[in-house]
Amino acid sequence: MGQKGDLLTVREDVRVLDATIRDGGLVNDFYFSDEFVKALYEMNVKAGVDYMELGYKASKDQFDVNKFGKWKFCNDDDIRAIVGENDTKLKLSIMADVGRCDYKEDIHSRDESPLDMIRVATYINTMPEALSMIEDAYNKGYETTCNIMAISNAQEADVKKALEMLGKSPVDAIYIVDSYGSLYPEQIRRISDLYLEETEKYGKKIGIHAHNNQQCAFANTIESLAQGVSFLDATVCGMGRGAGNCALEALVGFLKNPEYRLDPILRFMEKYMVETRKKSVWGYDIPYLLTGLTDQHPRTAIAAVKEGDTKYLDFYNMILERD
Amino acid sequence: MGQKGDLLTVREDVRVLDATIRDGGLVNDFYFSDEFVKALYEMNVKAGVDYMELGYKASKDQFDVNKFGKWKFCNDDDIRAIVGENDTKLKLSIMADVGRCDYKEDIHSRDESPLDMIRVATYINTMPEALSMIEDAYNKGYETTCNIMAISNAQEADVKKALEMLGKSPVDAIYIVDSYGSLYPEQIRRISDLYLEETEKYGKKIGIHAHNNQQCAFANTIESLAQGVSFLDATVCGMGRGAGNCALEALVGFLKNPEYRLDPILRFMEKYMVETRKKSVWGYDIPYLLTGLTDQHPRTAIAAVKEGDTKYLDFYNMILERD
Repeated sequence: MGQKGDLLTVREDVRVLDATIRDGGLVNDFYFSDEFVKALYEMNVKAGVDYMELGYKASKDQFDVNKFGKWKFCNDDDIRAIVGENDTKLKLSIMADVGRCDYKEDIHSRDESPLDMIRVATYINTMPEALSMIEDAYNKGYETTCNIMAISNAQEADVKKALEMLGKSPVDAIYIVDSYGSLYPEQIRRISDLYLEETEKYGKKIGIHAHNNQQCAFANTIESLAQGVSFLDATVCGMGRGAGNCALEALVGFLKNPEYRLDPILRFMEKYMVETRKKSVWGYDIPYLLTGLTDQHPRTAIAAVKEGDTKYLDFYNMILERD
Repeated sequence: MGQKGDLLTVREDVRVLDATIRDGGLVNDFYFSDEFVKALYEMNVKAGVDYMELGYKASKDQFDVNKFGKWKFCNDDDIRAIVGENDTKLKLSIMADVGRCDYKEDIHSRDESPLDMIRVATYINTMPEALSMIEDAYNKGYETTCNIMAISNAQEADVKKALEMLGKSPVDAIYIVDSYGSLYPEQIRRISDLYLEETEKYGKKIGIHAHNNQQCAFANTIESLAQGVSFLDATVCGMGRGAGNCALEALVGFLKNPEYRLDPILRFMEKYMVETRKKSVWGYDIPYLLTGLTDQHPRTAIAAVKEGDTKYLDFYNMILERD
């Protein structure tokens, strides 16, 4: 089991991961300016954040490089243009989606890359492919995590099987991912216990990636932390698809380890996020609540919000039809 | 102790209170149109909400009736103009603040009033006056609650003493009020246990009134519910001072009792709240996070947001000076 937490002491096993570019990129098609990414990087270094996720390693065969900003592809050279050799304590990660990443070619050996960690995102029915990707990244020298998405839709027996498969793999951390923002704190505590118990004998770390459809992203994150979860994902101002994510500023404000500093985050937000919020829309809204409540992908809600559709009752009736 | 909850069964002891006019009135100085209040009343009846709070009974000696909408004063006749004799299952309440209400004169006998419940709001150092107000309302025939504000700033020994005083009073329910939105779910569970344990022998109900400074209003509400708290305050779209409140739509979506209906709330929101949100500003923002984090009254944050002041770091440094 991971360490249990209380509200006053420091948990040395905690790792905070800033996913602003990766999850926020889903809001603006990864069109962040170099200045923004550089300033965010420097913020993370100063704030004592442990990992910064720069985006996806998406397949250029599957996705048009002219239709997305560069952080959907995360070329090593584009990363180096921002961070140089990254001579800091901050580690860098990218996310690689099962079936959407030419990982054998596009993920280079760690000693040739500025990256430190590869996070493999998978649904529960593509675990074998996820394990191949984890093996590949491990053999190239990376830290690895596996982010099993949409577990609110999965059967517990399947989750246990996936955890056993991951337990026997070289993966460092396994993430609880509440893709639809449908889980309540009580459920998150129970799922945290399950992940921790099933992987204890393998010595794996457990992480949490929460969404804010029902305004529980931050609460779920700190509740899982108290159960023993140690890898915590967050984004500045909760920037992320739809209802967004756990807010980094709330999380860092909560954590008691003085290594984490709120000041650089406040400075970054006043300089960059005030404007970013004017250009892009994310955060709690009724359609997101409704897809969260009904445990569904937020794509219909994102479309409704984008179109300014505020016919909430029609929307609800539409998403309740599932035959 | 109250009943404990789980995620699938119905808790018959639950009472939902819609405080949209009262807490939302703090955003717009109680200037709601009659049409809005009437539609909200009808929404609450259809949604199976148990109580609707219409506003304050503020002293007209202390507050200028020309500077506030009528729901700051809640004359019986103004209420009747909306609800008639309120021949429904929905009960009506108002809030009476210690020291700001001429309760002996302004609160009439229940058989002459459309109101059903008087909620007395007090700080912990004005308990004797609160008890006098509770006695007065009880003797006039009302259900009563006591809402002890700002308990995050209070000593546990004082809270226990207050609970004992209230236990011996005729009050029906005692509220946990997180005035500053500073409490985390873990603390709310502990405080819920304290309130429930201390008042069990007196047979009092416990309530929760949460604020959203740290995005925990809804999570804290359902967590306290699971501990045995039964009176749950919420507002439509979380409308309320500063960061706002627990969102009624999220709460009703969560509750499993089929008596509670989400549809009328969705219909009300699309017709009235889309426009209301354009006229008034509330909800999570960085200054509110910071006063919540530091357990302070949000008045400085409200002023900053109103002025469009986004110098978050200066603001944080300012509120950290407490000498």
